[in-house]
Amino acid sequence: MIGRLNHVAIAVPDLEKAAAVYRAALGAAVSDAMALPDHGVTVVFVELDNTKVELLEPLGENSPIASYLEKNPAGGMHHICYEVPDILAARDRLKADGARVLGDGEPKIGAHGKPVLFLHPKDFCGTLVELEQV
Amino acid sequence: MIGRLNHVAIAVPDLEKAAAVYRAALGAAVSDAMALPDHGVTVVFVELDNTKVELLEPLGENSPIASYLEKNPAGGMHHICYEVPDILAARDRLKADGARVLGDGEPKIGAHGKPVLFLHPKDFCGTLVELEQV
Repeated sequence: MIGRLNHVAIAVPDLEKAAAVYRAALGAAVSDAMALPDHGVTVVFVELDNTKVELLEPLGENSPIASYLEKNPAGGMHHICYEVPDILAARDRLKADGARVLGDGEPKIGAHGKPVLFLHPKDFCGTLVELEQV
Repeated sequence: MIGRLNHVAIAVPDLEKAAAVYRAALGAAVSDAMALPDHGVTVVFVELDNTKVELLEPLGENSPIASYLEKNPAGGMHHICYEVPDILAARDRLKADGARVLGDGEPKIGAHGKPVLFLHPKDFCGTLVELEQV
């Protein structure tokens, strides 16, 4: 069912500093910062040869990464995103398997303009999993 | 400097259960469990289309993931591994940049039989980073 690893999202308290770490120290190709107010984050994309890392800083009130950063003030890996060909089929298979889909269970349009769902960390080895239909 | 994302390592308290989650619920290609006593872990490889996830369970005493699981009993993302073409050049560049390399700073032979180094999470957005020479 899952295909490519679409991205690993790293929540950071200071996006400019995090982007500099990836650009200067690790020598990666790093995008400009992009504000995504609908998603409550500002993002920098780190383009690797086979996938990407997304550095996320909270934007506005009720950012979905605010509570994570309260618990992890230095930042850390927030979620992992896997690609699926059919997100409704994926959801139905997961629910039949007893896994919990977050929210109302309906896909939302994610930060890349594609349908996404988030799965409960307790059902996935303590890891918040995003599924993205590609 | 960094090229491909080699793997994301997820520490888990129950490897058999974690492998079943990835195999059955997420429909991924999952290897048999492989004991790596020199590295203090038993590993299952989840082969994705572009990279892999490694599910790690502690093996023996002094496992390098034991303290992580004490703090995160349900498991979670433990480290992220980036490939570099020349690990000594990477290390020297990082040290010149002020980043802390863990241990004595000399590459060790990692779980894939290749030279690896680990970088201090405090210098990398709260994320434990492994570099692997490929």
